[in-house]
Amino acid sequence: MNQQMEIICVGNELLIGKTLNTNAHWLAKRATSLGIMVKRITVVSDYVKEIASSVKEAMQRKSHFIITVGGLGPTFDDKTLGGIAEALNRKLQVNEKALKMVREKYEVYVKAGRMEKVELTPPRMKMATLPEGAEPLPNPAGTAPGVMVKIEETILIALPGVPSEMEAIFDESVAPLLKKEAGKVAFFEVSIYADNIMESTLAPLIDQTMHDNPYVYIKSHPKGEEKKPHIEIHSSTTAEDSKTAKDRLGKAIIQLTELVQKSGGKIRVPTKLGE
Amino acid sequence: MNQQMEIICVGNELLIGKTLNTNAHWLAKRATSLGIMVKRITVVSDYVKEIASSVKEAMQRKSHFIITVGGLGPTFDDKTLGGIAEALNRKLQVNEKALKMVREKYEVYVKAGRMEKVELTPPRMKMATLPEGAEPLPNPAGTAPGVMVKIEETILIALPGVPSEMEAIFDESVAPLLKKEAGKVAFFEVSIYADNIMESTLAPLIDQTMHDNPYVYIKSHPKGEEKKPHIEIHSSTTAEDSKTAKDRLGKAIIQLTELVQKSGGKIRVPTKLGE
Repeated sequence: MNQQMEIICVGNELLIGKTLNTNAHWLAKRATSLGIMVKRITVVSDYVKEIASSVKEAMQRKSHFIITVGGLGPTFDDKTLGGIAEALNRKLQVNEKALKMVREKYEVYVKAGRMEKVELTPPRMKMATLPEGAEPLPNPAGTAPGVMVKIEETILIALPGVPSEMEAIFDESVAPLLKKEAGKVAFFEVSIYADNIMESTLAPLIDQTMHDNPYVYIKSHPKGEEKKPHIEIHSSTTAEDSKTAKDRLGKAIIQLTELVQKSGGKIRVPTKLGE
Repeated sequence: MNQQMEIICVGNELLIGKTLNTNAHWLAKRATSLGIMVKRITVVSDYVKEIASSVKEAMQRKSHFIITVGGLGPTFDDKTLGGIAEALNRKLQVNEKALKMVREKYEVYVKAGRMEKVELTPPRMKMATLPEGAEPLPNPAGTAPGVMVKIEETILIALPGVPSEMEAIFDESVAPLLKKEAGKVAFFEVSIYADNIMESTLAPLIDQTMHDNPYVYIKSHPKGEEKKPHIEIHSSTTAEDSKTAKDRLGKAIIQLTELVQKSGGKIRVPTKLGE
């Protein structure tokens, strides 16, 4: 059984269709590859109440990890920590470790000639004001630290929305934690492509293959135009080692390929399976 | 007050980071431009219970529109209508109007030489099996019809996950409905760009501008590298006509530009505002 995760993305820009949610895509892919099962992704606006209720709901569903993305910066609409504090019923307070991180960043900016002296104005103090009991996570690519809070069985992590900063904090502080929690389990996947067969004809063949290969999940993704069907068939499995995974996926793909060919379809297989 | 919408995307491929959620982005942008406020986007897996609980939760939040995307096709893991039926406590049953749509599609495929004769196998009948009281929406780009159910004040619409099919059904059947419900209200937005100023210095200037321009929402998006800050400033408003919107946005931008310049920052404005 994999450890489960929910991702909560905060930002009006995602809800008005201004910004494509590449952060959720990146995080889901990385977490999955580390052996974690992402159960839900939620996008909410920059309102404390919305953030708080989405965090509370995720906690009630008892995922082991909850990662929020966005809303950690210095502006008025960076409200994620207020939302988390409300969800956890904790106070926001200046965290000395976070303040040290923020001050050191501004000292670097002063040395680089980007500002005259370190002034910890209210918008800057805001980035060091965390829910009680939270730990800051160093931000190798920007100013606002990430934030981690443990609540009973759940680890709640808040990352900034700027992709380079989110990725840097994830790689440095979050990935090692997920890897440890996931244990040996890893996720393996491969796609093959079917032509000359309709998805409705393919459906029962996938059913049968999944029935005969219980650890393999197979899903068809129609890609072509209505007039020329072209279907990606994506197979995946979670296993403790690459050999088991490849054996399982290989066996399922061979069976499905034979079934498709019997129905008059054509299968194209990438040269290197699983790579 | 805008009419509100929630979007629910169904598909394991979104949760394992295989597929970037361009559907949610497209829908959010189109709905916003039609004057609808998108309140939340939720991504869930291909499990009936997950789909049902996400639909129930959205209904409890009383959005006027709920749009689901994905899971309408012929395969075993196309489970959205099962999830909706469970959420609404309604039976799934063959819908004669939907069956006619599906049969006509296969008749076209027979004429095109893609299949020998119309056989309405169980996977094909599945696409015409809707929750009681639902209306099918014609699919100009594929086989599975869209589905619309009205429940008290909520209009629930299910669209397929293949982008060309989702977009075609939206444009033909959903957009006119949203436009009618939104009335005259429309969404206007414009971005300007700030250089040579840190986001934490910009923050109080945005606060002041928003305070003096109550109908305008302004949000900063840091874009540059840590060493060379570059900030997009996105301003938006909802108004009944383009002149009001442009006047409001123009006034706010002029004020903010002056404040930024006083702080030593530089502003670049696109040639044509609002275009």
